[in-house]
Amino acid sequence: MPLLATQRAEKIIARCREIAACTEVPGETTRTFLAPSMHKVHTLLRGWMEAAGMSVWIDAVGNLRGVYPGNDGPSTESVDRLIMGSHLDTVPNAGAFDGILGVVLGVALIEELRGEHLPFAIEIVGFSEEEGVRFGKPYLGSMALAGSLNGEALQRKDAQGISVETAIRDFGLDPARFPAAVVSSEAFAYLEVHIEQGPLLESEDLQLGVVSAIVGQTRMQLRFSGQANHAGTTPMHLRHDAMAAAAEWICEVERHAKAILGLAATVGKVQTRPGAGNVIAGEVLATLDVRHADDEIRRKAANALLAAATNSGEVRGVQLSVLASSHEDAVPTDFALSKLLLEAAEAAGSPARIMPSGAGHDARIVAERVPISMLFLRSPGGLSHHPDESVLPEDVEAALATSLVFVELLKANHVTQAIPQPATEAHA
Amino acid sequence: MPLLATQRAEKIIARCREIAACTEVPGETTRTFLAPSMHKVHTLLRGWMEAAGMSVWIDAVGNLRGVYPGNDGPSTESVDRLIMGSHLDTVPNAGAFDGILGVVLGVALIEELRGEHLPFAIEIVGFSEEEGVRFGKPYLGSMALAGSLNGEALQRKDAQGISVETAIRDFGLDPARFPAAVVSSEAFAYLEVHIEQGPLLESEDLQLGVVSAIVGQTRMQLRFSGQANHAGTTPMHLRHDAMAAAAEWICEVERHAKAILGLAATVGKVQTRPGAGNVIAGEVLATLDVRHADDEIRRKAANALLAAATNSGEVRGVQLSVLASSHEDAVPTDFALSKLLLEAAEAAGSPARIMPSGAGHDARIVAERVPISMLFLRSPGGLSHHPDESVLPEDVEAALATSLVFVELLKANHVTQAIPQPATEAHA
Repeated sequence: MPLLATQRAEKIIARCREIAACTEVPGETTRTFLAPSMHKVHTLLRGWMEAAGMSVWIDAVGNLRGVYPGNDGPSTESVDRLIMGSHLDTVPNAGAFDGILGVVLGVALIEELRGEHLPFAIEIVGFSEEEGVRFGKPYLGSMALAGSLNGEALQRKDAQGISVETAIRDFGLDPARFPAAVVSSEAFAYLEVHIEQGPLLESEDLQLGVVSAIVGQTRMQLRFSGQANHAGTTPMHLRHDAMAAAAEWICEVERHAKAILGLAATVGKVQTRPGAGNVIAGEVLATLDVRHADDEIRRKAANALLAAATNSGEVRGVQLSVLASSHEDAVPTDFALSKLLLEAAEAAGSPARIMPSGAGHDARIVAERVPISMLFLRSPGGLSHHPDESVLPEDVEAALATSLVFVELLKANHVTQAIPQPATEAHA
Repeated sequence: MPLLATQRAEKIIARCREIAACTEVPGETTRTFLAPSMHKVHTLLRGWMEAAGMSVWIDAVGNLRGVYPGNDGPSTESVDRLIMGSHLDTVPNAGAFDGILGVVLGVALIEELRGEHLPFAIEIVGFSEEEGVRFGKPYLGSMALAGSLNGEALQRKDAQGISVETAIRDFGLDPARFPAAVVSSEAFAYLEVHIEQGPLLESEDLQLGVVSAIVGQTRMQLRFSGQANHAGTTPMHLRHDAMAAAAEWICEVERHAKAILGLAATVGKVQTRPGAGNVIAGEVLATLDVRHADDEIRRKAANALLAAATNSGEVRGVQLSVLASSHEDAVPTDFALSKLLLEAAEAAGSPARIMPSGAGHDARIVAERVPISMLFLRSPGGLSHHPDESVLPEDVEAALATSLVFVELLKANHVTQAIPQPATEAHA
């Protein structure tokens, strides 16, 4: 007997909580790349997947891969394929839904097909690594899928001096099988369902969001170098106060970002040196994080904020240095898939908002090989990476219903490789 | 044969450097309260003092006390007395002049009297403790002189668990003799010669400053409590950014202090929590240090800055807490003595500026018992508490010459207890 809507949402939530009990640290959920507790996660998911008619295997980087065949037969190799997935690893002391939800919801979607086979296969991927906790490098799982996991990454070492390659062998896997991990060239679409990890949907009383792009990011580490001096004996007009310079700049960072739609700019870490109440700060180290879905807007903002930092320093005889900077371009989702996803949400009765993803996700890497789409669920309190992270059953149901309609629309359109592309690409 | 002006300044500087070699840490000058190296300092000073005709003893807290008798006879007990002094201890990795200079210059002044005895005795005090390094409490030496060193202070322990009382015994002194350490009730004036430890005199091309007051100080430890959140997924309008609130406030601290003559306000230490580049600061801890020679101005400023912090927080949903605060009132120098000191500087050919002392000094404590005055020497580069701390020979000579004229003026005016007091006190 089919489950009622509320029952199937509660079942997904219960399964996420069951997986959350697989942990390296008793009493909390902490499960990093290829940790022993990941075996138990695989066992649980494999059981549910096989019961739903899927063929399951673990690829060379530890991604769990379950394939539900298309209606052209049981082949798991050469058929057109929809990929659904998210990650199985967590941050330390995590919640129960970040990542896992997208995998468990994918399995529930297969269950809801109740044996019906579509003109394409559906592969559910539980990525082994996305958070970057163990090796300080995120996306190891999706990079293997995209074929971009290189030798340098394999030689990285964790805090115990164990390399990625050794960790793979220790888990019982064979790095020689990396080529087989690369996603099928028949994959025509990727859908990642994920909690928003932000407060936007909740603030607008919406359940779902369809991601337009994973934002680009500029990160900088800045140093303001003034002159440390006695807070009592140095008159205001003779100071070179690095903290005053940094403060004026931080105000400008906030003002600038507020004035440009969709721009996020953050100074999250500030360190004063020598850092004593009675000493004027001679040096301040500050981080800058700038994000926007439009790379040009982000680059202009980063440049303007760098100029503002220089100016705040100059008027105080404080020197600015850029100690480090890195840039990642935005990754737009596939226009046609996102449009279908919006239609699906509407049809399922939970109209979604178009929004950028301010955080990175496996989809960012998968996009190197497969057109991507992402569906966000409201995060109560905007909370994630925290034991109190939660989801509302009605939002889980809305996401599952939307995913099912999305699959129906893909089927109805017979959309495979022939999915309509934006005009610019069609003419290329 | 009397020394030439440049020779006597060079001699003072050489003696300061000789004392700087008495240290607990080879290769640098670090000499805390009653450290073994203090014995060598006492031996050096005692030698110079006795050669100049002074009677020398060490009091119960380790202050070196040298008395040059007045012309009424050799008594060291009951005669009118001018006190000159400063401290013998240092901060870690110190320079050679902070504190010591005032003692060595006092000895040079006695030498320059060349056996002439005045209508009053002169006592040179080398205070054993002013920096507060060993026991986290400054002014132990001058407090003994003022009779305000209480039992609580004596039971304080250093990092090795040694109490002040034990340290005194270990140095070979007897805490039972504290009463004898209290300054003679015949003391009618205190003069402390000290490096400025700030950039003001140098910036105005002046050699000397006469201190009007040791400024009052308000210290606070503030906490801005916002909400830590993901820097990518939290739109600007939904943030409670504790660092943005703190930054707006720090700008206001600077602006406010610049607008009020003589006000110094400093945010020297800022800590962000969690303190990650990709996380909006949920909490910021910040220090505030406010100083002014006028207590009313300081109190009003501190209140205004606290209100500004509350406001910067409120507009962002960030809560302000005052974790700690302390207040010390200003200590004005004696009006008549300071006037004499200004006249002396003028007469000695080095006109001095009236200025507040932004830092604390032994004089602050001595003022509980004796009318005080302070003479500042220019600090090249504004530098102190640093191995590169220095003095210019011509400034040392100017300070010595001024001190000698000051003593001459005291003598000429026969000023003892009958030193003219400000009108308000005369009418009291």
